[in-house]
Amino acid sequence: MTVLVVGSVAYDSVKTPVASRETSLGGSAMYFSIGISRFAPVSVVAVVGEDFQDEHVDAMSSCGVDVSGLRRVTGSTFRWAGEYYGADLNARDTLDTQLNVFADFSPNISAEQRQCPYLFLANIDPELQFDVLQQMEQRPQLVALDSMNFWIDSKRDALDKIVSSADVLFMDEGETRDYAQEGNLVLAARRIMAMGPGVVVVKRGAHGVLVFNRADMDDDMFSVPAYPLDHVVDPTGAGDTFASGFVGYIAATGDTSPAGYRRAAVLGSVMGSFCVQGFSSDRVRKLRMQDIEDRFRAFTRLTSFAPLDDGEHIVPLDRQRQARRKKDRV
Amino acid sequence: MTVLVVGSVAYDSVKTPVASRETSLGGSAMYFSIGISRFAPVSVVAVVGEDFQDEHVDAMSSCGVDVSGLRRVTGSTFRWAGEYYGADLNARDTLDTQLNVFADFSPNISAEQRQCPYLFLANIDPELQFDVLQQMEQRPQLVALDSMNFWIDSKRDALDKIVSSADVLFMDEGETRDYAQEGNLVLAARRIMAMGPGVVVVKRGAHGVLVFNRADMDDDMFSVPAYPLDHVVDPTGAGDTFASGFVGYIAATGDTSPAGYRRAAVLGSVMGSFCVQGFSSDRVRKLRMQDIEDRFRAFTRLTSFAPLDDGEHIVPLDRQRQARRKKDRV
Repeated sequence: MTVLVVGSVAYDSVKTPVASRETSLGGSAMYFSIGISRFAPVSVVAVVGEDFQDEHVDAMSSCGVDVSGLRRVTGSTFRWAGEYYGADLNARDTLDTQLNVFADFSPNISAEQRQCPYLFLANIDPELQFDVLQQMEQRPQLVALDSMNFWIDSKRDALDKIVSSADVLFMDEGETRDYAQEGNLVLAARRIMAMGPGVVVVKRGAHGVLVFNRADMDDDMFSVPAYPLDHVVDPTGAGDTFASGFVGYIAATGDTSPAGYRRAAVLGSVMGSFCVQGFSSDRVRKLRMQDIEDRFRAFTRLTSFAPLDDGEHIVPLDRQRQARRKKDRV
Repeated sequence: MTVLVVGSVAYDSVKTPVASRETSLGGSAMYFSIGISRFAPVSVVAVVGEDFQDEHVDAMSSCGVDVSGLRRVTGSTFRWAGEYYGADLNARDTLDTQLNVFADFSPNISAEQRQCPYLFLANIDPELQFDVLQQMEQRPQLVALDSMNFWIDSKRDALDKIVSSADVLFMDEGETRDYAQEGNLVLAARRIMAMGPGVVVVKRGAHGVLVFNRADMDDDMFSVPAYPLDHVVDPTGAGDTFASGFVGYIAATGDTSPAGYRRAAVLGSVMGSFCVQGFSSDRVRKLRMQDIEDRFRAFTRLTSFAPLDDGEHIVPLDRQRQARRKKDRV
């Protein structure tokens, strides 16, 4: 195995203005592992209850995900219910959260998993995230981390500890500001980089991501829009599926150069854009490499413009002179 | 003169969490004309009151703006007061609006102005916008239009008429959806393009712009982020200053090719990013071409990533094969 992900596998109930689905396969580790299975061998560590159906184990294993670390215990699977609304479904209300067996999740990493060179710590208790990192046989080549407001508010010290041990941190816009205690996003991200992680990915939902990379001498900021879609089905899991493309690119290529991180962010956005086009991971699990590369090229077209060459001017010098002459005549 | 702008010149009172300014020079035509003066000779048509100070006329004319169409009439100048709040000042409340002499604005276009090949109709009553277009000696090479919710709600028919006569329409995200009566932004923009304008620019404030261009066969969508700034002073006028860079690029180069419109959108974003770094047009009026080109290059660095070459794969084929072999062994 190349990649290890530790997080949740859940049953979601999702409602949008035009559709809804009950008992939809969800959870951060599910979204991440199915997404990254397009790029690299992945092993998942998570816990589910007695109600978890075999067809949902198959949904993951048929994508090539190693599910030997998916523990089934007495009790019910983590359940979440939410409703999306607003234009492009960019707002949501959580209707219900039942942690169930996830409340006592205690990740146990197998001997083989401890050797994975790439580790994604999905959004769980930061103490557990640190414990997982401690269990690794050696420090992975890349440690990527997700978290949320709940842990910023309730376990800041533990969060600081794991953040300072991570290479890449994913947070949404509000969380980045709250965690850094700094309203300006640029200053907030740089403050977090100073704590340890060389790369901070600020997720902005329908507005894309902003990536800060301390090592990128070209510019420490890189912006990727979300792909504008004419139909959005279900935004659940877009963040973890983004992370799967991001970490997937690095795991598949080993490229942690600044240019590599830029492509990783685009591939993350590619995967996120597919995720929201279907319920659960329905669209993502059917992706062929050709679909992914086609949309990567679509991102290039979406964002490309002619740069200024050396010595080139936005307004050609003769036209600048002409304009000055006209101005003098006024 | 090359460019004609018709709109408002106003006195603003602006408050932010850290600073405030009274009787700040404002108005759409002021922001646009000072911005575009960096690129092309511009003439302004607007109305002010007896209280309008000579130093503020000078502020415009010293930038090379032709102010012969700035009419001073009995009464007070249009006044607006607003307060910005939230992270990066991306939310605002209007505290007071006094139309004053602007309520009876009736634009009168001079013989010389009627020949301008580039026309920007800033946000005023759509009936007046259409009247200005009728006064032109011949149809300008480019007609760019701004509007707002107030006119969408109160004068839809008149707005339809001028929109269908325009080449470029600027609207914010919510206005685009409202005007097209379509919640999905992509479908909304395409519906508006079908009414007439070949280019629809969707302004998203701190999240940049999305440009739809019917003629861009590469992709009819183009996305530019807002430049992430570590200090924002006053967002007032950012939209009109964006428009000044956008129209300014086309007026200065004559380039209305799809690639030209893409650069125009970047230059608009460059100018908008300078606008918010100072009160009023303070920062914009001091800009040298070098500053503008430097930030244009910064936008290139902010958004660039290595595209996939023909025949290149995101994950090299030998690594894909390797991954498949590993998967088969599991």
